[in-house]
Amino acid sequence: MSAMRGFLADKPREECGVFGVCAQEKGREVVSSTYVALYALQHRGQMSCGIAVSEDGLLRGVRDSGLVPEVLDQEALDFLGQAQIAIGHVRYGSGGNRDKASAQPLVLRHVKGNIAICFNGALTNAHELRDELELGGAIFHTLTDCEVIAQVFTRERLRAPSTEKALENTMGRLKGAYSIVLMSARKLIAARDPIGFRPLCIGRVGGGYAVSSESCAFETLGGELLRDIAPGEVAVVREGELFSLKAHCGGKGALCAYELVYFARPDSVLDGVSVHAARLRAGAILAQKHPAKADVVIGAPDTGLDAALGYAQASGLPYGIGLIKNRYVGRTLAGPNSAQRQAEVEIKLGAVEHVVKGKRVVVVDDSIVRGTTIAQALRLLREAGAAEVHLRISSPPFRHPCYFGTYIDPGEALVTAGMDAEGIRRALLVDSLGYLDAADMPKIAEGARLGLCLGCFTGDYPAEPPKPFEDKYLSPLSLSGRGEDKEQ
Amino acid sequence: MSAMRGFLADKPREECGVFGVCAQEKGREVVSSTYVALYALQHRGQMSCGIAVSEDGLLRGVRDSGLVPEVLDQEALDFLGQAQIAIGHVRYGSGGNRDKASAQPLVLRHVKGNIAICFNGALTNAHELRDELELGGAIFHTLTDCEVIAQVFTRERLRAPSTEKALENTMGRLKGAYSIVLMSARKLIAARDPIGFRPLCIGRVGGGYAVSSESCAFETLGGELLRDIAPGEVAVVREGELFSLKAHCGGKGALCAYELVYFARPDSVLDGVSVHAARLRAGAILAQKHPAKADVVIGAPDTGLDAALGYAQASGLPYGIGLIKNRYVGRTLAGPNSAQRQAEVEIKLGAVEHVVKGKRVVVVDDSIVRGTTIAQALRLLREAGAAEVHLRISSPPFRHPCYFGTYIDPGEALVTAGMDAEGIRRALLVDSLGYLDAADMPKIAEGARLGLCLGCFTGDYPAEPPKPFEDKYLSPLSLSGRGEDKEQ
Amino acid sequence: MSAMRGFLADKPREECGVFGVCAQEKGREVVSSTYVALYALQHRGQMSCGIAVSEDGLLRGVRDSGLVPEVLDQEALDFLGQAQIAIGHVRYGSGGNRDKASAQPLVLRHVKGNIAICFNGALTNAHELRDELELGGAIFHTLTDCEVIAQVFTRERLRAPSTEKALENTMGRLKGAYSIVLMSARKLIAARDPIGFRPLCIGRVGGGYAVSSESCAFETLGGELLRDIAPGEVAVVREGELFSLKAHCGGKGALCAYELVYFARPDSVLDGVSVHAARLRAGAILAQKHPAKADVVIGAPDTGLDAALGYAQASGLPYGIGLIKNRYVGRTLAGPNSAQRQAEVEIKLGAVEHVVKGKRVVVVDDSIVRGTTIAQALRLLREAGAAEVHLRISSPPFRHPCYFGTYIDPGEALVTAGMDAEGIRRALLVDSLGYLDAADMPKIAEGARLGLCLGCFTGDYPAEPPKPFEDKYLSPLSLSGRGEDKEQ
Amino acid sequence: MSAMRGFLADKPREECGVFGVCAQEKGREVVSSTYVALYALQHRGQMSCGIAVSEDGLLRGVRDSGLVPEVLDQEALDFLGQAQIAIGHVRYGSGGNRDKASAQPLVLRHVKGNIAICFNGALTNAHELRDELELGGAIFHTLTDCEVIAQVFTRERLRAPSTEKALENTMGRLKGAYSIVLMSARKLIAARDPIGFRPLCIGRVGGGYAVSSESCAFETLGGELLRDIAPGEVAVVREGELFSLKAHCGGKGALCAYELVYFARPDSVLDGVSVHAARLRAGAILAQKHPAKADVVIGAPDTGLDAALGYAQASGLPYGIGLIKNRYVGRTLAGPNSAQRQAEVEIKLGAVEHVVKGKRVVVVDDSIVRGTTIAQALRLLREAGAAEVHLRISSPPFRHPCYFGTYIDPGEALVTAGMDAEGIRRALLVDSLGYLDAADMPKIAEGARLGLCLGCFTGDYPAEPPKPFEDKYLSPLSLSGRGEDKEQ
Repeated sequence: MSAMRGFLADKPREECGVFGVCAQEKGREVVSSTYVALYALQHRGQMSCGIAVSEDGLLRGVRDSGLVPEVLDQEALDFLGQAQIAIGHVRYGSGGNRDKASAQPLVLRHVKGNIAICFNGALTNAHELRDELELGGAIFHTLTDCEVIAQVFTRERLRAPSTEKALENTMGRLKGAYSIVLMSARKLIAARDPIGFRPLCIGRVGGGYAVSSESCAFETLGGELLRDIAPGEVAVVREGELFSLKAHCGGKGALCAYELVYFARPDSVLDGVSVHAARLRAGAILAQKHPAKADVVIGAPDTGLDAALGYAQASGLPYGIGLIKNRYVGRTLAGPNSAQRQAEVEIKLGAVEHVVKGKRVVVVDDSIVRGTTIAQALRLLREAGAAEVHLRISSPPFRHPCYFGTYIDPGEALVTAGMDAEGIRRALLVDSLGYLDAADMPKIAEGARLGLCLGCFTGDYPAEPPKPFEDKYLSPLSLSGRGEDKEQ
Repeated sequence: MSAMRGFLADKPREECGVFGVCAQEKGREVVSSTYVALYALQHRGQMSCGIAVSEDGLLRGVRDSGLVPEVLDQEALDFLGQAQIAIGHVRYGSGGNRDKASAQPLVLRHVKGNIAICFNGALTNAHELRDELELGGAIFHTLTDCEVIAQVFTRERLRAPSTEKALENTMGRLKGAYSIVLMSARKLIAARDPIGFRPLCIGRVGGGYAVSSESCAFETLGGELLRDIAPGEVAVVREGELFSLKAHCGGKGALCAYELVYFARPDSVLDGVSVHAARLRAGAILAQKHPAKADVVIGAPDTGLDAALGYAQASGLPYGIGLIKNRYVGRTLAGPNSAQRQAEVEIKLGAVEHVVKGKRVVVVDDSIVRGTTIAQALRLLREAGAAEVHLRISSPPFRHPCYFGTYIDPGEALVTAGMDAEGIRRALLVDSLGYLDAADMPKIAEGARLGLCLGCFTGDYPAEPPKPFEDKYLSPLSLSGRGEDKEQ
Repeated sequence: MSAMRGFLADKPREECGVFGVCAQEKGREVVSSTYVALYALQHRGQMSCGIAVSEDGLLRGVRDSGLVPEVLDQEALDFLGQAQIAIGHVRYGSGGNRDKASAQPLVLRHVKGNIAICFNGALTNAHELRDELELGGAIFHTLTDCEVIAQVFTRERLRAPSTEKALENTMGRLKGAYSIVLMSARKLIAARDPIGFRPLCIGRVGGGYAVSSESCAFETLGGELLRDIAPGEVAVVREGELFSLKAHCGGKGALCAYELVYFARPDSVLDGVSVHAARLRAGAILAQKHPAKADVVIGAPDTGLDAALGYAQASGLPYGIGLIKNRYVGRTLAGPNSAQRQAEVEIKLGAVEHVVKGKRVVVVDDSIVRGTTIAQALRLLREAGAAEVHLRISSPPFRHPCYFGTYIDPGEALVTAGMDAEGIRRALLVDSLGYLDAADMPKIAEGARLGLCLGCFTGDYPAEPPKPFEDKYLSPLSLSGRGEDKEQ
Repeated sequence: MSAMRGFLADKPREECGVFGVCAQEKGREVVSSTYVALYALQHRGQMSCGIAVSEDGLLRGVRDSGLVPEVLDQEALDFLGQAQIAIGHVRYGSGGNRDKASAQPLVLRHVKGNIAICFNGALTNAHELRDELELGGAIFHTLTDCEVIAQVFTRERLRAPSTEKALENTMGRLKGAYSIVLMSARKLIAARDPIGFRPLCIGRVGGGYAVSSESCAFETLGGELLRDIAPGEVAVVREGELFSLKAHCGGKGALCAYELVYFARPDSVLDGVSVHAARLRAGAILAQKHPAKADVVIGAPDTGLDAALGYAQASGLPYGIGLIKNRYVGRTLAGPNSAQRQAEVEIKLGAVEHVVKGKRVVVVDDSIVRGTTIAQALRLLREAGAAEVHLRISSPPFRHPCYFGTYIDPGEALVTAGMDAEGIRRALLVDSLGYLDAADMPKIAEGARLGLCLGCFTGDYPAEPPKPFEDKYLSPLSLSGRGEDKEQ
């Protein structure tokens, strides 16, 4: 076993990315397209990944901890071989390589025909469902919500006339956030929870249909985005035909705001909103609400660049490239030792003296969690001779937990937790600090087909949070029970 | 993913080895003892392995494909940490590294308290049980019998007053061969099927009790064999106390004869029979039934040496060391290429000219499956100048399939299938050939507490073979379903 | 042996980066600083790397193929331990992992005291020196110029009163480009060829002195750039004191222009020129000489971004972020198979429709070699709806070989070789194409302390090219001789 | 870097094994034969290995730390490709993976044509030669004697009319033990020092000639031993013709006695002596000089088995198989942690109770160094119920250092150092202990074509030991110099 990645987790983390494709004919391209698509979605999860395929009615899969090109090596691709349908998954997880068992897609034997399933999101009633299922004789191999969904689905499948109907019925029992991609021998099915917390869209790839967490996967494959899957919709691709079940549709919907701010790639379009454009708007609003007398506006690479450009455009200040990211940080499989970890923090960025020396600099970043990286960036700017540093954050401070699929490492000391803006400003030694106001967030999603979830900023959630239960906070590593053996 | 091992599979293969230990106190020794014990049982399975532990009522485990020191590296041992109870497993499997999911022990969440489980054997009604369970809503991640046992147990557990009673009830539903080791938060439980196909015994290790497929694990740990677990017995260790449930006991029992001939280590004692002594007796019977006018008796290393010594002692011919095994064959993780595979066959043995030149040589081996290795050995002996070569095999020819846990790779052209002894003799170019007669096999187990299963030699099985069903023969790799999706 | 990296070599490649540090006191920081510095110089070479240290007069080193965090893992760092002086090297090489033997620094036993040595550059008289040395009894393990330099140095050392004097004498025999870092038991010595083709500078790190190919390494370590090492200078650090030998100084000097255009990090300052500023100027000149009627200016990430900003600023057109780079491309150790390679090309970039749809787009890149990546970028822009695409290249076309340390893979079909600009424009399907003119190149290095080498653009070299000799073009992999054995 | 192997070094260690083959025609078999041969010689060195080939006058090679199938993987074999001539090497080394640079064969560029070279042995004047060479301008990359030999050879080559004559002249300057295999573009050359400390022989393989440290390599390849290379002989194979230079021949010769006792494989024949037969004789002499009233004679596997059989035959006592070796010990690449190391000691052997319980047991082993393994074996025998244990060692105690190629880890507390036999007997808790007497050693080599070196037993060496020099004892890891920088 080698060691964990993502140790420099200075940002909230997406839980997952999903993809599926149903081609007109069987071929190796189905697997290679899924490989490429997962690579395009790699930013949504770097801990584990997998692909499952259906070839002539038989399902098989590969899943393991590691990046896409590590897990899906030549041996894996050869094993997957040719297929008509494939689904794939990338996953962030808190468990490092221990978490192999939590890799998706799950491939499951079932009397009504086998299925493969993967999802992005977080259930809020997983514990209740698990209890109920266990009392009905179910056993669980992991603590993942995916396995809970699979168990509920399996029971519904026994009673339902079709896979898609079974999935629709399953949705009636699930609470929380979920974008599910499921494959039976002959069908590719995608479903999104009635709130639509996590993105999910349909595209055309080759002559077939594909579903993906983000549209960038379609463009990478030379295909195109058709439309988003609506909150509550079950979309089915069977023999080249696309149709939907809409029993759970109709609600207003609320996309996770942090998808626009940080998670998604700038070249994706989510629910009608260009991610890049949303970030430009965030920067523009910041410029309006938190102007600065400055000489140059720079972004913290990579995710702060778009908002910085928006700030510069709106303020009329020159845009500059003042921070350089070391392209080699994180490119190692070996378990980094503490010397290496420290080095990776130090090495991550460089400041361009020519841009900042003697200048009043506005620095735009998307968010602050632990604050390690931005603190290092600010130090570099001061050392490079910046006269003043004005920090602008293109999202509101995190004040509340997310129960719907965004993960913030609890071990990370949140800079923003329990500090007011002035306290943070002083802690970071900046001349001024401005956050985007939660009230302004809806403006960044101008033209969106659904609302935004701002729960982590406001505590006002579009769906009911989970009931408190200690077990929820048990390590998923330990597969532990609830303490004592209950028997006599 | 790296490649398969055991490619030189020129022998039938054991499916598994199991071990469990329950110490008086929590400590790291519980894990290290299990590590050592699995190393001592490594000959029973080299494809995958794992350990699960119980620490203060919480269960956790590590399992993966690879040899014991590969899977259970420092990171794994640190993760397992301290425990009161541990169980472990080594497994042969037909699926190479693909077969990670089939590694054991399984650690399972359950509403009545979590358990970990592993087993050695093969169910003959796995398919029926699986069908029934799936119709009840169960889902399966693997095609392993272990998962079937786990699912049946889980359902029985909901109705039973205790873990051990649930296991006893589970046994009422299982058919075939199984030596189960199961651990709950507070108990170590071991159960053996009513026929007792696979060995299972209890020993003293440190101040606690241990269970093992073979007694050699106890000696390696500085402990000692107490007794065998009887066919049908459920043995329970709880808080330092050992007790049994015997509802399924009373049958005659029939240990797999091939355990004595090949699988078990010569320093183990199975059901009252020293494995080394059994092999000496096999050699002695061969000497009596198939004498040879010869100058020296040599064994094919390593598993033919004991019988060769028995032949020499009984015949009065000198025992010689005429074949040398290259100690480095098989010591590589890398996926061997075809040049390497060929090399490993060529390199495996060397003949000692001093011992065989100009001599009439009796060569004793334990069995012939594909015949590759013995053919190479015979070639070397001829090249080294042996005047005559007389081959003696210390078991009868394989004529029938084993349904009870011995695996013969179907891809291997069985030298013995469809050939009579004279045909085999000519194919191998030996001057004479003698097999042990099936009728003589019981004599090698002199003093055994139960009978022998000779099914693979005679076709006469001590329990009912499974009903024919094609699915049984699907690759466990593919996790495939039964072909078509049944819905409309 | 695992496989080669850098397969997406669509750009000329730097041969190496060098670093050295001499601290006031012995400590582990000397090693960790060198580790961090090499990480900061990783862009100059990704094939192999190494560190050598001097502790209490004893030298030891680690060098191997792989990235910095791969080669310099915990075991390596522990082995290097504490030191007063350390030197390090990153290397591009044409030989993949075969090229382990060519990794630097070399640590060499010598009767006058051991030394470690590494360098960046390329000798033009390596063949003549090698012939002469071999006739004097020398043997070579590699085809590297570093070993030639080491052999010449060793012979000079026997006659010279000090290490630095021996190095100065060695320089009298070397022709070509070389920035050497050398360490004896008590001294850190750095020397730059009289032309100064490759950068080399001195900085302050902690309380000691450091030398580096680029100044970004000093800033990363929290230190600062003191000055460049002059062409022909031998700089010596001994017991905290810095002094120079200047017998070879005085020439005009000519820094490789491509260092400013592509190789160096934007946050480095080379010979008085900010790399970022040089690229801004290149963009500005392009805007003036090759204006475009357009709506937006975008850069090809990462190395085209600075020039794109310069173009936008000078032209008054808006700067946009229109191409997104997949941050995970290239992050795998496994030897990529062809499916993966193709995927890595496809996956490398994404276009932002919001920025380019219906727009007339100026795209700025730094150079074109094979043209694969820019062709993919242009395809993405067209698919994203760009109305027009105007390509601007911030350097002149490559027309001539470089003999002084820039490597262009001969297997790469140079888009620019044998095509005029109009031919290239048509091949790339762009609406207009403009290169920076060689005559304008000196302007980008405004304020430089030495001239620029423009040899690869003009064929006019500041030093004599090597004499043609077939052996020079033999694969460094084969360690081959000159064909026939000359004896009878 | 992964960790060291051979950590259970409870025996003296051979330094190396060498092999070379010159085929009639170019082909891939030349490489695969060398691969197989090195596998057959793997017992002579497990730290590093390599192969160099000559194809159409061009030389190339692969060498690295690791076992044969690890270093010579598919990529390496493909790189080596086809050849007419190949030489190979396996090496024990004290430096773990650090010692990559010391792997052989060395492939060296030279003005008179390139060569590859490897050797088995140890020079006693390496230090003097190194000093002299360094004063002549030579530089050294390693502390290996092989590099010293290569440097001396290179200088001689400049003056000599042929490669073989240069090697003969080189031998005039070397002192100590060396069996050299050298390859030029067209010739395979093998040379043995005038004493013949280390074995070296010539065989027929396919239609060509081969040279090898041991004859077992020829048999493994389906070839045959022709004859030994005489002490002092230079054997040359050129274009299918074999001839010799004999200027250094004529001395009496003295083969390392420990080659017969432990190093060589029992199926090899060294200088006319069957290794197996020599060990049988050693056992027989022990039976005569140190008889025991006992019930059974057993050997310590694997290297004690032959002598045990000889003891049994000579004494008339029954031979038994009383100790079983775990076949999986040592089969891991991962750096073993301390728990694993301890486990490997515990796990290495098992005792067969059936053979030893209640019996008076004679145990025969070949030698005692650290004594760890034999102590564990004796413990197991006592626990298994042996009534008496009589230990017999088939060689005299080590009392003196070996300067001629046998390595005993200085970190290992020699059980025998400074203890008399009675002290050792008490330390090991055995009922009696008998060593083979040094005076009887020559009898084990009955029929040998040369004498035996008994230096490590008697202190009486057949050649002059090296002059004492501290540098000799520096770690070869550190490539360290002699302390201080000598300059002002």
